[in-house]
Parts: sequence; structure tokens; C-alpha cells
Amino acid sequence: MSLICVPLMDESLDSQVKSAEGLECDLVEARLDFLSGSPDLRMLSNLKQPLMVTCMPAWEGGRFKGSEEDRFGLLRASLEHADYVTVELRAEEKLRNQLIEEVKSAGVKVVIAFHDFEKTPPSDEIIALLKEEESAGADIAKVAFKPETRADVVEVLRAQASSGLKIPVIALSMGELGGLTRVVGPLLGGFITFAAVSHEKRTAPGQYTLDEMKALKEILWK
Amino acid sequence: MSLICVPLMDESLDSQVKSAEGLECDLVEARLDFLSGSPDLRMLSNLKQPLMVTCMPAWEGGRFKGSEEDRFGLLRASLEHADYVTVELRAEEKLRNQLIEEVKSAGVKVVIAFHDFEKTPPSDEIIALLKEEESAGADIAKVAFKPETRADVVEVLRAQASSGLKIPVIALSMGELGGLTRVVGPLLGGFITFAAVSHEKRTAPGQYTLDEMKALKEILWK
Repeated sequence: MSLICVPLMDESLDSQVKSAEGLECDLVEARLDFLSGSPDLRMLSNLKQPLMVTCMPAWEGGRFKGSEEDRFGLLRASLEHADYVTVELRAEEKLRNQLIEEVKSAGVKVVIAFHDFEKTPPSDEIIALLKEEESAGADIAKVAFKPETRADVVEVLRAQASSGLKIPVIALSMGELGGLTRVVGPLLGGFITFAAVSHEKRTAPGQYTLDEMKALKEILWK
Repeated sequence: MSLICVPLMDESLDSQVKSAEGLECDLVEARLDFLSGSPDLRMLSNLKQPLMVTCMPAWEGGRFKGSEEDRFGLLRASLEHADYVTVELRAEEKLRNQLIEEVKSAGVKVVIAFHDFEKTPPSDEIIALLKEEESAGADIAKVAFKPETRADVVEVLRAQASSGLKIPVIALSMGELGGLTRVVGPLLGGFITFAAVSHEKRTAPGQYTLDEMKALKEILWK
């Protein structure tokens, strides 16, 4: 049973809440790094779906360019509204571990994530990263890589299928080429798959829309 | 651009032709090994779709229990109606090569197939089998294996994605567990995927129905 999560990437929380209205998905992901200005995080309480909060820093491939202190401050402030919070594996270890403890103390689940927008390592290296995430205290381990070839996509599927972790794994291959991992991941035990609000609002190429993903789920995961 | 092929497994050619009536697929596969008695192969001309002819021997996991001479006789007699003929890689080499020559002389394409209903080897062994099929003169190389684990399924996907053959490849993982290869194969360059006439008429567990596969194609391969 995999969850379909729809990322919200509007530039204001108001618009993110509007985008989420009426979406029949299992989870929405508020991408705080897309927000301009200083968001009023209390607005997160207007979201009706279970909530994942992510604030991906520019050094990971996201949009947040502020300090780690500011970034972790936003995540902390969102804790009372969140069901899941994403923490980057590559964040400074001490700060990261401290945040992970706080997230857990708040009864919120920790997604530890690793993105590489340049390349895909072999599956044994991907599995090593997933294990590192598990050791760091993840409730859910997430990795995403840019593929150059179909073989790269299969390396990611291989890691998804055979990581042997005790926690749920999300292993994604990015771009049009990797799009199939969003569909196949759930069949290989993937825990969450991401779908776009609409074709216009895809947060990543290769993403399917929520309607498409629900149709796929109906046929493939029934 | 992958083709959707619907296998026909009724016990008379008359019924196979009836099953195929009105099916909007790219190809039908007449499974001659399912026929009882001595079929009148001229009935194959009543099929409206492009035709693959297969007569899988019991030693490969099929139903045909007669001699190789009789089996090859059926295949030869079907040549004038067929677009593709399946020849098993493990057939006796001299007879096999002779049949392959005849099929090609008739302007019909040769699918060389290897099935293992017991297990799945590692991807490098799967690729070695595909290369053997290519060397033996295949126009299309087909392999199908029984998986025990999700990792087995991924070995098959890996072979599909990275075989490096110059001819089209069909690499299937069987059973419910392997069912996803029928959907993902086309995304990894697979040439033909197999779909059932209906849920009642599935020739293999894990197979999707033609209607399901067309819906999947609409979303996934568009």
C-alpha cells in the first residue's frame, strides 16, 4: 500500500493551500523552499490532507538560499502542522541530528533524503546511502538520482527492491527517463510516490499527474 | 513504440479465432500447443490481426507433447499465415537452425524464446541467453523467468535495459510478482508486451487485460 503525495510548489503558502484544495491524495508536500518572503506557517493548518514539510536547500538542488539556521527554524516552526518532515542527509551532522530528535519528540516522522541531480551511482552505493539514512534515524529513507541511461534507472529500481532496510524506502530516478520509477516504486515496495497537481504544475519532469497516478494505482497496485 | 500482443489459448482454432474477434491489439499469438486434435491451420487466415504463432513444447513449459517433427510441421504449415513464429532456443540445434532458415525464407520474423518456470538467473546470464538468441538468428529475442523475490524481477528489468542487443528484446518476469515487467518492459525498450483477452482468459498470472494494458499505454508510453 503506497501513498500518493502531491508536492505544492507555489510561491506563497496561500497559493499552496489553494492548490491543495479538493485534491484526493494521501499526502501533500509543502515545499517551503519555493516560498518567497517570510511565510506565516500557521497557514499550514488550512491544509486538509496529511502533510509532509520540505525545505530543500540550494546546495541539495532546491530553492532555499538562506542559512541553515533559518531553514531549520522554518522546519521547526512547521512541526505542529506536519506529519512528516524532510531532513537532508548531507546537512551538517550535529545540526541535523538535533533537528531529527526534535522532529521525533514532536511525534512527527522524519524523511531523510539524498538527491543527486547530476548522476546515478551503482545500486550498492545507493543502498549504502539508504542505510546511512536509516542509521541517522530516518523513519523513511529517500534517495533521488538523475539517470543518463536506462541502466541507471534500473540501478535505482534495484536498490528499491533489494535494500533490505527495516524502514520504508523511496528510491526515485529523475527526469523523463526515470519517470517510470514513480510508477514501479510502489510495486517494488516503495512507500510514497509523488504526483503533480496538474501537467502545468509538475515539480519534476517525468512526474505523472494525480489523476494519472490514481488511474495507474487502480490497475497496478490493486 | 511497443506492441501489445494478446495470446489465444483456446483448445480449438475456431475458438481462438472467435476470441480474437474485435480485439483492438497490435498482434495476436495463436498458441498451437493449446489445441487438441489435428488443427486445420488454414483457419488462421480468419484472424484479422497480425499473427504470432507459438507451439510451446512441454519440455519448455508449454502443452505440446508430440514429437519435434510434428511440432515443427505445425509451425511450417502456419508460415503462410504468420508474421512472427516462435522458436525455442533449446530446440535441437540442427532442426532449429533449419526451421529458422525456412521461417526467414518465407518472409516471417523469428522470435527465439527461452523460458525458465523455476528460477531467475543474474542479469549477466540473462543477457548471455539473449545474445545466444541473437547469434542463433533471432529477429526478436525473448526470455521469461520465474522470480522468487523482487530482486529477481529487477534482474530481468536490468537485462531488458542493458542487453545491448541490435534486435528487439522481450524480457519477462513471470507470475504476480513479475507482472510489472509487462508494463515496464515497454518503457525500457521492450518490443512486445502480452495482455490477456480478459481476466478469465489470462495465459499467465501477472498478466494485465488488453483494456488495462491499453489504459496503461495511454498514460505510460504516450
